Amino acid sequence: MKKLINSVDSVLRESLDGFAAAHADIVKLSHDPTFVVRAGGPVKGKVALISGGGAGHEPLHAGFVGEGMLHAACPGQVFTSPTPDQMHAAAAAVDGGAGILFIVKNYAGDVMNFEMAAELAEGPMATVLTNDDVAVEKSTFSAGRRGVAGTLMVEKIVGAAAEAGADLETCRALGERVNAASGSMGVALTSCTVPAAGTPTFTLADDEMEMGVGIHGEPGRRRVKLAQADDIAAEMIGAIQQDLSPKAGAAALLHVNGFGGTPLMELYLMYNAAAKLCADAGVVVARSLVGNYTTSLDMAGCSITLTLLDDETLRLWDAPVKTAALRWGC
Amino acid sequence: MKKLINSVDSVLRESLDGFAAAHADIVKLSHDPTFVVRAGGPVKGKVALISGGGAGHEPLHAGFVGEGMLHAACPGQVFTSPTPDQMHAAAAAVDGGAGILFIVKNYAGDVMNFEMAAELAEGPMATVLTNDDVAVEKSTFSAGRRGVAGTLMVEKIVGAAAEAGADLETCRALGERVNAASGSMGVALTSCTVPAAGTPTFTLADDEMEMGVGIHGEPGRRRVKLAQADDIAAEMIGAIQQDLSPKAGAAALLHVNGFGGTPLMELYLMYNAAAKLCADAGVVVARSLVGNYTTSLDMAGCSITLTLLDDETLRLWDAPVKTAALRWGC
Repeated sequence: MKKLINSVDSVLRESLDGFAAAHADIVKLSHDPTFVVRAGGPVKGKVALISGGGAGHEPLHAGFVGEGMLHAACPGQVFTSPTPDQMHAAAAAVDGGAGILFIVKNYAGDVMNFEMAAELAEGPMATVLTNDDVAVEKSTFSAGRRGVAGTLMVEKIVGAAAEAGADLETCRALGERVNAASGSMGVALTSCTVPAAGTPTFTLADDEMEMGVGIHGEPGRRRVKLAQADDIAAEMIGAIQQDLSPKAGAAALLHVNGFGGTPLMELYLMYNAAAKLCADAGVVVARSLVGNYTTSLDMAGCSITLTLLDDETLRLWDAPVKTAALRWGC
Repeated sequence: MKKLINSVDSVLRESLDGFAAAHADIVKLSHDPTFVVRAGGPVKGKVALISGGGAGHEPLHAGFVGEGMLHAACPGQVFTSPTPDQMHAAAAAVDGGAGILFIVKNYAGDVMNFEMAAELAEGPMATVLTNDDVAVEKSTFSAGRRGVAGTLMVEKIVGAAAEAGADLETCRALGERVNAASGSMGVALTSCTVPAAGTPTFTLADDEMEMGVGIHGEPGRRRVKLAQADDIAAEMIGAIQQDLSPKAGAAALLHVNGFGGTPLMELYLMYNAAAKLCADAGVVVARSLVGNYTTSLDMAGCSITLTLLDDETLRLWDAPVKTAALRWGC
């Protein structure tokens, strides 16, 4: 295992300390229990959005804490759910009096622990469960579809609505709508290596790829020979289209997400392939996002997400955001 | 070789097409010769900044074209200098009548071709050569020190000055000053693989790293056993400090740059180590930048850059910027 670390036990803490120090103008970090909140403190009278999940997917979720997006993020150890006390403490820290919305990726551990935190909640609260991964219907760590890179769109769009003063039920319903309008699929060219394990999570031959891989290295649809970028994009866009059934002329956000070990040059090449396929299918790419946002440690590969947009969600996507990983208009 | 590509010959073109499509609000791409300019066209009455170099370092330089930073970027093939006709055409496209400033990383091919382009120039022009890499005094492709991640600081700070109306000589002198105030050093845990070569540029054993590596995989100071992050950071910060000799209490920008194959989690951990070392040395980290900005294809590893800041360069760093890869205040 080749990693820039000091010890397996301190990876998360040291990485979060670095993150908080580098972005002290945007976030504040608490330890014991561990959570990240906006530097400015709770926002009075507005719904507070909290997400979380295992570490190893950076910048998700702590990188999305800030004005116009999340109010708090609770990172677990690498690929391990955070605990209910983290979410409970985060909720107490960001509660602005208008309710708490949990945004939870559909993995059994996350779902269970966020549910326990919800039971501990004193004020009004609601949950949005994301399950945008169209690759498989159930997986190693999930009953039902996995929540992957489409979670970013839910966090951004609902974050903008909360900032504008939307109430808890409006935020929850909007989150469900964005999740339902989002489809994702991934491909791995290599495995990731979890620091505590020290060896690759799975093995791929030099000429193989895993189509439909999960963001923890879970199996996808099939293991096949490495194909050309155009063919990979065609299978991914095809599967997403089949799931979303966009109307001709539908507007969409096209997101090509790197898993951590793939250079930007290849991500833009994949974007080029995917954008052409969208145009061929009559989908209008109204907005784009290319880069490493929902990663899987050092895995080589990428995912493609399409989020169908209406006038409201497009406007909320464009609204100002100031986080460590996503920033415009501020 | 495992890459998300269609063919080795079309990597650059397809990747640039994707980049231009994803950021059509910010940039415009020309082919034959290849260059990227701001979508808004030339800025009348202001100095125009042009940079360029081999591809494979994305988002450098095309990702830094936009308001408050570069006016044009000329990408060559992977790790290959662009040609003088690219710079000449780019200069004609962005000339606002106040002169052209070339920002050139110190590699023999780049230096020669930008010099030829300068000879072709019709109006006033000047050049800033960056050579911030403190690892080695000369290298495979350079007479003298290499220009690496510190180039970003030159482009950002001079870009802000040009935007504010600074004249050509002021921009040139400022660029020299920022370059002289910047020191960088890199470490590789793995080699990169150039698509046209198909095999790794160099070989590292499973327990080895290359201290002081160049951004094309050029040899560094020495090949040693993989060390802990704190020790790696200490050697890098030590070398940079020795070069810059900052006064006690000096303000600096601390930049941890990923080479393309290293996850953000490790980059923030390295930032944490480096920031502590700066504090120990009496350097005040006034600004931070962590992420993949000056990459080496899929190389695992990172570089650390320190840029000493004065009141003027700090203010120019903070000035609004709207590019694909760096954006704030817009």
